[in-house]
Formats: sequence, structure tokens, C-alpha cells
Amino acid sequence: MGGDHGPGVILPGLEKVLERRPDVHFVLFGRDEIVRPVVEKLPRLKTASDIVDCEIAVSMQEKPSQALRHGRWKSSMWRAIQAVRDGEADVCISAGNTGALMAMAKFCLKSMANIDRPAIAAIWPTIRSESIVLDVGATIGAEALQLIDFAILGAAMARTLFDIERPTVGLLNIGVEEIKGQEEVKEAGRMLREADLKFMRYAGFVEGDDIGKGTVDVVVTEGFSGNIALKSAEGTARQIAEYLRAAMGRTLMARIGYVFARNAFQRLREKMDVRKTNGGVFLGLNGIVVKSHGGTDDEGFAAAVELGYDMVRRNLLEKIRTDLAFFHRHRPASTPPELTVQANGAAGRAG
Amino acid sequence: MGGDHGPGVILPGLEKVLERRPDVHFVLFGRDEIVRPVVEKLPRLKTASDIVDCEIAVSMQEKPSQALRHGRWKSSMWRAIQAVRDGEADVCISAGNTGALMAMAKFCLKSMANIDRPAIAAIWPTIRSESIVLDVGATIGAEALQLIDFAILGAAMARTLFDIERPTVGLLNIGVEEIKGQEEVKEAGRMLREADLKFMRYAGFVEGDDIGKGTVDVVVTEGFSGNIALKSAEGTARQIAEYLRAAMGRTLMARIGYVFARNAFQRLREKMDVRKTNGGVFLGLNGIVVKSHGGTDDEGFAAAVELGYDMVRRNLLEKIRTDLAFFHRHRPASTPPELTVQANGAAGRAG
Repeated sequence: MGGDHGPGVILPGLEKVLERRPDVHFVLFGRDEIVRPVVEKLPRLKTASDIVDCEIAVSMQEKPSQALRHGRWKSSMWRAIQAVRDGEADVCISAGNTGALMAMAKFCLKSMANIDRPAIAAIWPTIRSESIVLDVGATIGAEALQLIDFAILGAAMARTLFDIERPTVGLLNIGVEEIKGQEEVKEAGRMLREADLKFMRYAGFVEGDDIGKGTVDVVVTEGFSGNIALKSAEGTARQIAEYLRAAMGRTLMARIGYVFARNAFQRLREKMDVRKTNGGVFLGLNGIVVKSHGGTDDEGFAAAVELGYDMVRRNLLEKIRTDLAFFHRHRPASTPPELTVQANGAAGRAG
Repeated sequence: MGGDHGPGVILPGLEKVLERRPDVHFVLFGRDEIVRPVVEKLPRLKTASDIVDCEIAVSMQEKPSQALRHGRWKSSMWRAIQAVRDGEADVCISAGNTGALMAMAKFCLKSMANIDRPAIAAIWPTIRSESIVLDVGATIGAEALQLIDFAILGAAMARTLFDIERPTVGLLNIGVEEIKGQEEVKEAGRMLREADLKFMRYAGFVEGDDIGKGTVDVVVTEGFSGNIALKSAEGTARQIAEYLRAAMGRTLMARIGYVFARNAFQRLREKMDVRKTNGGVFLGLNGIVVKSHGGTDDEGFAAAVELGYDMVRRNLLEKIRTDLAFFHRHRPASTPPELTVQANGAAGRAG
């Protein structure tokens, strides 16, 4: 029911998924009277789906707490997440209200053992290929151990999606060495270097412009700066696309040039196509939830579903559980006393 | 002496400035034996400059503390800043080591009354025109009152450069309403709204993608996320330029198209030309220092100098002093008690 366009875009997206991955079965949570007529027109989806009628749908404007209050137990969003918790679905995909989805997912699925707070991971197209950036907005601020959790989550996702055995991981930082603050980032770096985990290669600090370069497979940061980085990059991409459009339409010569170079522009458009990397992945919960961009089209929603499919097929959750357990078993005993003090402080990370 | 190319790029840049602003006089701080031979070949600069021989130059690799230790009093960087302090120069421009420049500027010029910490302001090209973003990396973290200081500094700069009487100011934030943390941003928003200052229009929170849209004239944030936003946008711009180059060179048709649309591409290049907005401005000190990008060319360095020129000609420092004094005289007495507690805490903002 979610997203800017609702079932009219989501359901055709599922039809596309079935063309490419015919072994999926869908459970559709929403108002039967709205969902069924659309499904009826989609032959593949009709045979490969069940509809679960849900009276309530969380709106895009609701605050997370409101959504939890009036939508828990019965809204389409809640019941889709619950299906994952109860093993009736392998993954939940939604184009709905991000804050509400995260609040419900946390409440219903709960955090994994050893994880305090979940993260949202984004797939970021780079000059080299693709990288994973997390957290892009689930929580603000993170202590050293939380950043390490994010690193483990992101590395498991990279191994799952990119088929790399030991993905490189960088901590997002700024290039000034002697500034105070962000002690968490430095501490996380020290610990990751010392732990030398078998399932990731810690590559040190990276800066904002390293993300697009693809310097590392996984970029780790807390949710505020991660969200700012993502949105700021999106804004710049739109801005340049706008410049390009304006420049190519301004003169006759430019328009002629455009006709000749049409294939090249098509290629550029594909490169810059945000639909291909649609889908923010909620990591650190006992179940996978993928948040599709609300404004995407059927092709974009299909990409988010296929992202979820791939992660399930390749056992992302199991990888994460094993890696987290390994790290916390072998966690450097040398955690310096400052961290312990900090961990007992108001922020409340239990050691 | 600074930057990746040193006097070979900087001095020709000054020659360009003199073509456009013939009333400037330059004091050049550097090794005489290196600077003089280049100046000799630049007729305008030769008659409009003095060379002050400095034995020591701060290198691009030095840590700020090292630079302060070995370069204070005698390095070209220090003496250029000192000239501003002593009224021998109106503005200092450097393409050198950012951290060292900031450390020396703070040490030599000192913070203005009512300002705890300086900020670096960047000019950000937007779809609409240009905006100012600060802090882009002088300090990490900022309390509410520091964010308000940044807003006042940025608004004064916008009035000076953009000729707007009451520039709009937004606080950079992420779009999730009910997340804990970043209380400073919320508190700053409350105070700015309440203060309703005559020299700026507070426009609320903005997100990362609002920067490129030009939603507000001034975007205020603490230095960590500001730096990440800036670098992430720069990285994206380079990435898309790379895609475009690759696409346009790949086939004969594309290359023919490129020839026809050459003027359009030229226009695009101009739009994306980072040299035009070169120059990070150190604000909040008793004197203006402009940091040019180290890797820029003569045209880019000239832009940084002209930025400094314009701010001096239009009395930026005086505007800032008046505005700060006004705000602190009329500061809402209603600052809630939480803030007072926070202000007395470890972070040490005196009330």
C-alpha cells in the first residue's frame, strides 16, 4: 500500500520480478478491494501470490509513534513484517513510510544478539562498481562498538551481494588529523585494525569523495552523516542531470549533437539510473526488511525485491549471525579503559 | 608557497586578478629566490606587489601542531596571517595546508568576541545560483549556540556576496522526526525561530539534497557532516563527469554528436567548474583568511583572491561584528534550563 503510487506501481513491479525469478511466491498485504483488481490483470502474479486483506495502511505522513499506536497488529505494514518474524515470509519489502517501517521492524523483529541498534544500508554506485554505505539514517550517532557492528553487517552484505570473500571496509571521516571529537571513529578504527577479522579487510579512514570512487566495498558511518552523504550525492546527481538537460536543449546544434550521441546518453542514463540500486536494507534485526524508495516506478520496486531475494538466497542473516558471534567471542580484551568508561555513560552501550 | 603547484600557479593567478581588479596591492610571503623570478615575468604583478622573504614554508603534509611549532613567527603562512592581524593586509589568501592554516589563524587572529570556534564556509553552486555552507570542517560537533553563531556568520557572508538583505538560513538535518540525538540542531532551530533576527530569515531544517537545489541561501551544520556533504557532492560530480566522458568517447556516433554539441558541453563544463567557487572562508576570527584548493590552477586561485577582495570591499567583518553583538544583546532569555545544563558540561560553551 506504500509509496507515492501504491499498488499501481508495486504490483506491476512484482510481475517483472516473476519474469526473471519465477520461483518467488508473494504474500500481498493490503486492502483487498484495491489490490485484487490490479492483481487480476497480471497473469504471473495472479498465480504466484496470496492477498491478505488489511484494513489499515500506514500513511506516508504519519510519525513513527503514531503509526505504531494505530497500526500495530493490524496494518498492512505490520503484518508484512510479522510474516517475516513468523517464518511465513523470507523477506519484507515496502515502499512505505521509512520511520514507521523501522519502528515496526524494531518492535516486531527485535535486534539480533550482540546488536544494540539496527542500521539502514544503501547500495551506492561507484566508478569501479558498487559499494555499501551504512548507516544512512536509522540512528544518529554511534559509539565505537556500534560502528564495528555496522562494519560486520555491511561486510556480510557485501560478501552476499558482490561475491567477495574479504570485502574492504572503511570508516567515514574527515581529513583533519588533529581535530577533537569523533573519538568513536578513531576507537573503532583501532579496534578493527587490532581484531583483523577474517571476513573483512579494514582499510582505514575514507573521506566523502572516496565513496563515489569506490575506494572500499563498505563505508561505515553513523546515521546522521551517512544520510547527509547520501542525500547530498543524490542532490548533486540531479543538479548535474538538470544542467546537462538544459545545455543539450538550448541550441539547434546541441540538439543535433544529442541525436547523434543518443546511445551514449542512453548509456549515461543507465549509469545514473537510481532505480537499479533502489532499496535500503534494514540490518541488525532478526529478519530482513527492504525499504524501496517511495517515488520509484515498477522497475525500481522490482530491483528492491530482487535485492531482498538475493540476500535471502545467499543466507545473509546466517552470515551475519556467525560473524557477529565470532567477533564478540574474540573481541580484543585490550579495549582501553576510556571506552569502558564511555560505555557505562549516559549513552548506555552495555559492554 | 602553498598548494600543489606553488608560486608557478599562484603568481599567474594574481596577474589575472590585477587585470580585473587593478586596485589591489599584493604582499607576497615566500622564499625570495623562488618568488622573485616568477614575479619578474608578470608585468602587472611586478608593479603591484612587494615580496617579503620568508625562510620557512609550511609543507602540505605537516600536522597543524608541527607547523605551529616550527613555523610560528617566521613561516610564510604565519607572516601572511600576521599581516592581517597587524593591519598591513586586508585579507590573507593561501593554497597551503588547511589544518596548519586554521591552527595559525586561530592562534594569531583569535576568535571574535562571542565566538567560541571558527568555521570554514564554502560557496556551493546550486540549480538556482549559489549558497553558502558552513562549517565544512573546522571543528567537529557544535552546540546549539555555536550553530547559531555559524548561522550569523553565514548570513553576513551571504549578504556581502549575494546582495540579499535577509538571506534564508536552513539547519542541515535528516528527515526522520522522532530520532533521538542531534538535540543541538533542534534547539538551535527553536532559538533561531524565536529570535527572528532582522538580518536572516530562518527557514527550518533542510536535508542533504536541498543544498544542490538551493532551497536556502545559507546551510548551517557542524563540521563533520558539512565536510562529508561537501566531499560526497564533489565525489559525485567527478563520478558523473567520468561517466559522461566515457560515454561520449565510446562510439563514432557519440564522438560526432559531441562535435555538434561542443558549445553545450562547454556550457556544462562552465557550470560544473569548481574553480569558480574556489575558496573556503575562515569565519569567526578577527580577520579574514581564504583557503584556496591546493590543486587549483591560476584561474581558481584568482577566484579565491577575488572572493577575499569582495568580502573586504563590502565590510564583511563589520557586518559580522554588528550582527553578533545584536544577537547576543537580544538573545532569548528563554533559553530552556536543559541548555544551561548542557552548556556547563564537558563541552564547555560558556553561557
